[in-house]
Order: sequence, then C-alpha cells, then structure tokens
Amino acid sequence: MTALAPGSTIGIMGSGQLGRMLALAAARLGFKCHVYSDVAGPALDVCDRHTIAPYDDHAALTRFAGAVSVVTFEFENIPAATVEFLDRLVPVRPGAKALACAQDRINEKTLARELGAETAPFAQVDNRADLDRALAEIGTPAVLKTRRMGYDGKGQAKILAPGDADAAWATMRGQPSILEGFVAFDREVSVVAARGIDGAFRAFEVTENEHRNHILHRSVAPARLAPEAATEALETARRIAAALDYAGVFAIEYFVVTIGGREHVFVNEIAPRVHNSGHWTIDGAETSQFEQHIRAVAGWPLGSTRLKAAGAEMINLIGDDILAWERIAAEPGAFLHHYGKTEVRPGRKMGHVNRLLSKAP
Amino acid sequence: MTALAPGSTIGIMGSGQLGRMLALAAARLGFKCHVYSDVAGPALDVCDRHTIAPYDDHAALTRFAGAVSVVTFEFENIPAATVEFLDRLVPVRPGAKALACAQDRINEKTLARELGAETAPFAQVDNRADLDRALAEIGTPAVLKTRRMGYDGKGQAKILAPGDADAAWATMRGQPSILEGFVAFDREVSVVAARGIDGAFRAFEVTENEHRNHILHRSVAPARLAPEAATEALETARRIAAALDYAGVFAIEYFVVTIGGREHVFVNEIAPRVHNSGHWTIDGAETSQFEQHIRAVAGWPLGSTRLKAAGAEMINLIGDDILAWERIAAEPGAFLHHYGKTEVRPGRKMGHVNRLLSKAP
Repeated sequence: MTALAPGSTIGIMGSGQLGRMLALAAARLGFKCHVYSDVAGPALDVCDRHTIAPYDDHAALTRFAGAVSVVTFEFENIPAATVEFLDRLVPVRPGAKALACAQDRINEKTLARELGAETAPFAQVDNRADLDRALAEIGTPAVLKTRRMGYDGKGQAKILAPGDADAAWATMRGQPSILEGFVAFDREVSVVAARGIDGAFRAFEVTENEHRNHILHRSVAPARLAPEAATEALETARRIAAALDYAGVFAIEYFVVTIGGREHVFVNEIAPRVHNSGHWTIDGAETSQFEQHIRAVAGWPLGSTRLKAAGAEMINLIGDDILAWERIAAEPGAFLHHYGKTEVRPGRKMGHVNRLLSKAP
Repeated sequence: MTALAPGSTIGIMGSGQLGRMLALAAARLGFKCHVYSDVAGPALDVCDRHTIAPYDDHAALTRFAGAVSVVTFEFENIPAATVEFLDRLVPVRPGAKALACAQDRINEKTLARELGAETAPFAQVDNRADLDRALAEIGTPAVLKTRRMGYDGKGQAKILAPGDADAAWATMRGQPSILEGFVAFDREVSVVAARGIDGAFRAFEVTENEHRNHILHRSVAPARLAPEAATEALETARRIAAALDYAGVFAIEYFVVTIGGREHVFVNEIAPRVHNSGHWTIDGAETSQFEQHIRAVAGWPLGSTRLKAAGAEMINLIGDDILAWERIAAEPGAFLHHYGKTEVRPGRKMGHVNRLLSKAP
C-alpha cells in the first residue's frame, strides 16, 4: 500500500458540515477535494470541484470516480448500490462492508454481541405480529426504531406499555424495524477512533455526551468513566473496526450502565464516519478527527490523538444558538466553528464552539 | 462599525499559499471566499469562487467588488491603481495608505524613523550620481535595493567596496532604489501583529527568524531577545499600525543589533499582510495569524494571541524539502502543512512544518 500523494484529489460523498470539515482538513495536507451530493450544502464553499447529481446517476458517478483517487463519505445513508457501483471504479473507504453493517441497527448490534460486547436487549420486527412477540420477550418500556436511516431521534417511537404498540408500529410505516429494550443508563459516552489501511488503531479520549431533544448538545473529554469500562469501550471499538476491515474514522456510542456497583458500556450505535461527538478534537487533540480520517483513507500514518489540555468540550450551536456568534467570537479561549449555513432552522446544526479545560471534568 | 456576518463573502487578491491559508481560516468562521488573481495558484482549490484576470481589468474588478463584502490581499505588490479602483466600490483592508507605505522601502523606513524607531542608515538613489553621493555618506559595505517589489533577496546587490557601484547600479535597471548601510546584526526577529478596525492591537510573541539563501528557513517563538528590546519592537509595531490606520495582520522584520552591551531593534521591513514568520501560529497560538487577519478585516474582535506551549517553531519546506512529507506525517507532534502545489521548483515554498516546544528556546 502506498500513501496517496498530496496534490491528489479525494472524493467526498455528501455536502454537509462534516464534508466541509473533512475538506478543510484535507486541504491542510495538500489534497484537493471533489464533493458529490444530491443537494447543495456548505461543503461546496471550500472545494473547487463538485458534482450535484442523484446518488443513482451512473454517468455522473463514473465521471466522479474518474476525477478522484479515493472516495469517502460524510454520512452513512448513502445507498449501498451507489457504494458498490463506485467500488468497482475507485477505492471506497471505509468500504461497503462497514456501511452495510452500520446502516442496519440489527446488523450492528448483532456484530457487537458476536464480538463479546454488551447491548440493550433487541429483537427484529418486520410486521405487527413480530412486534407482539418482541414485546413479550423484551417487555416495556422499549423503543421501536426503523432498522435503517434513522438519526437524531427520527424514525423512533417509545412503547411505555403494550397498548402503545399499534401507534408505534404505524410510525414505522411498514419498514423493517427493531425493538430495543429500554436501558436505565447513567450517561452516554462515545469512542471516536481511526483504523488505518495497515490495521493501525488510534482512539481519541472517551467522550461524554449530553443530548437535548434527541440532538447532541455537549461533548466533553475525557468522559467520567471507570478505567475498566473505558478500556472495554476502547477494546470493543478496536475489535469492531478490525471485524469490518475498516479504514477511516468511526464512532461508537455507548450507554453507561451501572450493574452491581460496576460500570458497563452497552453498544448503542456504530457511525462509520467522523462524528459530532469528535468535533472537540479540532482544537483539543493533536490531530483532529477530520485530519485523522483523511490520513486513514489516504493510506497515511495515523496522527497523535493526545489531548492538548487536561480536557476539552464542544457545545453544538443548534438553530438560533448560532445568533450568539459575535459574543462567542469575543470570548477568550472559545474556538468558534461556523458552518456558513445562511438559513437558520430549528434543530439545524449551524456550528459549534470548542473550549479547552484546565482540569479533567 | 458592524461585524461582517458569517455567510458573507470575503474577497482575497492573490492565489498563493497565503491566500489559501486565509481562505481556510475564513471558512472556519463561516465566511465564503472569492479569490482574484492574475494567475492560478493553490488558493483556488479551497474556494468555490474565483476570478482569473489582470489586475487592471476594470470590468473584472467591478464584478469582483460586487460579489464580495470586503477585499483583502495576500501580497503587497498589488498595483496601487487596482487598490484605489476597488476602494471606491468596496472596503479594502488594509487600505491604500498602508500599501503605499509598505510598497516602498524609502517610505517605510522614513515612517519608522518619524515614529522614533531605529533603522539602518539609508539614502535615496534615483540615478548613478545619487549612488556615489549615498556611498560617500553611508560607506561600505552597503546594499543597493530597488525601492519597490523586492522580496526573498530579489532586486538586491551588495556593494562591498566603491568599485562594485557600477555593477550594482546595473542590477537595478534604472529603477528608483535605496542604498542601505550594512548592519552587523546578531539575529533577525519579527513582530506579527493585528490591528482591528476599532484600533485594538494584539501581537503574537516576538519571533526569531533564520534565513538560508535569502529565504526564511526557520522561525521560533518566543525570540531570544532582551525584554526592553522586545517591548521596543512591540511598541514600534503598535505605533506604525496606528500611523497607517491599519486594519488586519502585518509583520515588521527587525535586525537585532547590540550596541554598548544593549540590544537594539532596527526596523528592516514592513509587510502589510500575513507573514511567513507567523505560520507557527496555526498550531502554536490560540488564534492563528490567518484567523486573526480575517477577524480584523471583518470587523470582529481580535482573538487571543497566547502561545499554546512554552514555544513553537516553524520550518519552511522549500523545493525538494517537500519530498519528506511522508516522514514528517509519521513524526509525532509534527504539524505538516502542504500547500498542494504539484510542481516542485528550487526555492519554491511548498509547505511548512510546525512543532510545539516544551521549553522556551
């Protein structure tokens, strides 16, 4: 394997803020980026080249593949057929296997279990009768979710009692679903890590995440977590990445559950991409998750993941929060990141602010 | 004065690596950039919009001015007429006054003297007879330089003895010139600082610079410099910026001269732009010089200039040096910056590498 030389062009599927921050990191290393998306987004502003076309436009995909040396993506919901099509023309990293796993909640939890990790109890629900069987097995409270394409709380329905089953199933609109037992967790943490093409593995500090309205509000590293649980979280991440023959940055979200006075980490989700809970690394780690992903997909050695201070935090700027940009810009030690989206909408991720912490949380 | 809102477009004159790093810093704050240049360069790769046209193309300049909210530049040798033309259409920061001063070695040294700073002895040389008069006044060794457009040792001729005068004058090709007395300096330092539209002033740590073949090789901060000399260097920078009603980042290069056991700083050059000796700030200061410049020209509050470690250094990657990118990428704690230039030429600035230092130099 040879490292991709600076001056080469990296293809990025998706034009959102993750693609934008990937492109900015790639530029620092001397790479050009070509964004492919079915919709215009803020990544386009920082690239000289882009393609706006549907994800099943084979002619456009073929031209795109011919213009780049490697393809990566900023979101996991790219159609599998698109990835398979591209993969015949140009290396796609991470590959179809990782995507197929992470796109499906049953697959990701099954893999985690097979590798010895803990998860919430879950059952496959393909029809209304399955839901009754699953509820009998798992009990309530539980959460019914579509197997695919859900994020930020979309495609989910709580089932507090068996009587909620009809309404919950209606929410799924007949899509293949999963019933997950409700887990009484203390807090949520994530591991953001990278695996190189050569199998090298580097993780950032375990990060503690606080959500509001199902959207990440604050991440802080290092997480408050028992050392054995942190080791377990990192080792699970390493095993999952190896099993998927992964190349690039990924995130695993965990629930922290205290059982018999001991902290356990339950795998909740695998995200095969850079992750919102890793945004603090831009200012808080020696290598940002975005540069780390570019290094990995370009076949470069992975960079140091060391914290630059005792701790670091990230606060998302959601919707109107972004209107505080002028105050944040004047705050000493606040690192403002504005995604350049001009239309403010409720729930829309508009930017974030990082701060270094002089002592661990 | 109102701060320019994210989402606005900043115009950058010049398409080199300084423009590229300005555009990357602007993107982080949510700005779009539009590069205007008479030649294609690496800044184009990181912007969605650009204009390639001569600097005297009034139609292209008018369209450019209409597409941006403010104009800045990455190099000081833009024709004064271009800046004056743009200035009637859109704010240009820093303004024509600063450019006119910095484009002319006589003007910049005269201003420095008027503000109480020390410089090498100098005299204006417009013809061969002037040169004889200047040599009689200043003596040898001395350096004859064109008043305008010189950088990296170009447009300069050493005069070690009066007999060198003819050859030196021939090198100037009749251009208005300046004879500078040779100064026996211990080392070279620079102040990279910013002045806001509101008059606020913030300087980075004084930086020590080592040149090789007239090109900057290494910068390290903080400089080895007596505290009184450092204060003098910073105060001179503050006074010069105020006198020019400056907005943006600028650099002042000084010779450090020991006279009677005491260190003096002699103003050598004023650069009305981000400066190679400030590249360490990308990884070594809480705000990079590039973000600081964008903040200043956008009317934002200036950011913290605090060092992130005990010290920081930058090594330029000139010509073939860039071929070591793979080794540097694998070095823990090395921050590689590759400008994405594909053609390697001797003397060409291809990238740089920053490192943090655990103790002051």
